[in-house]
Amino acid sequence: MSGADDAQIVRDIREDREHGASWLAREAARQMALAAAGEGDAEERLSRVRALGQALAQARPSMATIANTVARVWMVGAAQAGDAQAQLEALRAEALEIDARWNSATDGMATWAREVVSGTVYTHSRSGSVEQTLTTLARERVGHEPLRVIVAESRPGGEGVELAGALAAAGAQVTLVADSACAVFIEQAALVMVGADSVRSDGAVVNKVGTRTLALVAQAAGKPVYALAERLKVTPDSYPLVIEEMNPAELLPQPISGVLARNIYFDVTPARLIPHVITESGPTDKRDIALLAVEAERAYRALMAP
Amino acid sequence: MSGADDAQIVRDIREDREHGASWLAREAARQMALAAAGEGDAEERLSRVRALGQALAQARPSMATIANTVARVWMVGAAQAGDAQAQLEALRAEALEIDARWNSATDGMATWAREVVSGTVYTHSRSGSVEQTLTTLARERVGHEPLRVIVAESRPGGEGVELAGALAAAGAQVTLVADSACAVFIEQAALVMVGADSVRSDGAVVNKVGTRTLALVAQAAGKPVYALAERLKVTPDSYPLVIEEMNPAELLPQPISGVLARNIYFDVTPARLIPHVITESGPTDKRDIALLAVEAERAYRALMAP
Repeated sequence: MSGADDAQIVRDIREDREHGASWLAREAARQMALAAAGEGDAEERLSRVRALGQALAQARPSMATIANTVARVWMVGAAQAGDAQAQLEALRAEALEIDARWNSATDGMATWAREVVSGTVYTHSRSGSVEQTLTTLARERVGHEPLRVIVAESRPGGEGVELAGALAAAGAQVTLVADSACAVFIEQAALVMVGADSVRSDGAVVNKVGTRTLALVAQAAGKPVYALAERLKVTPDSYPLVIEEMNPAELLPQPISGVLARNIYFDVTPARLIPHVITESGPTDKRDIALLAVEAERAYRALMAP
Repeated sequence: MSGADDAQIVRDIREDREHGASWLAREAARQMALAAAGEGDAEERLSRVRALGQALAQARPSMATIANTVARVWMVGAAQAGDAQAQLEALRAEALEIDARWNSATDGMATWAREVVSGTVYTHSRSGSVEQTLTTLARERVGHEPLRVIVAESRPGGEGVELAGALAAAGAQVTLVADSACAVFIEQAALVMVGADSVRSDGAVVNKVGTRTLALVAQAAGKPVYALAERLKVTPDSYPLVIEEMNPAELLPQPISGVLARNIYFDVTPARLIPHVITESGPTDKRDIALLAVEAERAYRALMAP
């Protein structure tokens, strides 16, 4: 493999619109493992793996979990005693283990998250963790009172429609609503549950645009808001917060002279609006999140240091 | 003309998705004038006009201004001394005058509204009054610092896209955003300005769905919210508040088994979230609105009394 191949790996992750942050972080780990397993001089390979990790860490600025994952992989390798080959083997093993462990992390979150579901759930966008939690609950309730879920269509992208179909197929009673109707339909919900693309060290949640609006509306209506986020989604403090902006044609297929369509894909919801973050270790508090951020920072610095 | 024609008139107004409440109220007035000008027995014609007015008053429950308009027309006729023919002539004259006066009411609102525009305006849906206010301002600023407007796409319907084009054509610098992004883009706005389908006697504003969410977000961000509403939009207290629900296919073109799409078209924003209502007489306070509601109530009772 060459640097040109690596550029393509990074581009594929940068341009992916199909998968969420968790999937892309696992894919980044798998690519690090593949790069570490290559042929030729071990020293050269190690420096190529590092360059790949640095590029992947910056590929999706709204998804710090990608940076966290490759940084963790790099740090474990660099901490390994021995020569470059030993380090490559250690980081490859860590990458494959992170990938393998991810499913049980999602299971763990779902186990904790189900404890808080009582009454109708309102969700926005299509979080894999929220989907797994709610489909599991919906299946268990078949034959009983069905699980009720309100799903926002989640423009642009509209991935809420797919989530609605998946939940209904699992037996949930699903209501699909326009994003703008959240101040109306929040009245029918008992709680809000969303995923997270990343969590800042102060507990703020970066997620699909609309999360901030929904959380604000939920708070005004006195409804609790939960975000599900793997521990690897807590962002290092020095990681730059850049909100990705996508193709304006998703909002405005036919350009209009004098009209600038702004297709902001993510937003930041402050911790006071999402007080409950649930990881695979259970509900967190501010101190847990701050500690996870310190851990992530250490790995990120190890990867990015010149 | 027959009762069957009247049924068609009512259906046309009920099924209209193209025009706003003001246009439809004027159309209702014009139809009352046409019915009053018919041939044949005046007593019969008068009772037909009343039946038409009663049906029109109930055709669009989210648009009380239609009820207000036909009730005002009816009341002016019924108050006329003399026989049925004299009453028909009086109500016909009132209907035509209301139609003719509407443009100057809109001009009046625009004149008052422009006084509060300072900085970037955020708007939702496509209100005729807001459009007139902002296009006038945008044209005046050509050659100077342009008027800046943020327009929400306003799903379902998406009429914000047309408004964005109209404002840009008048010289405004327009940013089109997803409805769900309002908590992000409100930070760039100095104020929110929306129209109103009707105003309740307690000052609550009925308008296109999303208005309530935007007003709540604006309040949390400390930005003032203005609604433009003709005096004839203030609703009689006994007028039932029914929020119209439209075709779910607008949200979900391909039905999905187990998914109920709820296409609620309007919402109600409490007065505390829209403290500033501007009519053709200028900014109103709670007492003005309550008095307008009493006036509307008197006309509505006269029309609907058995």
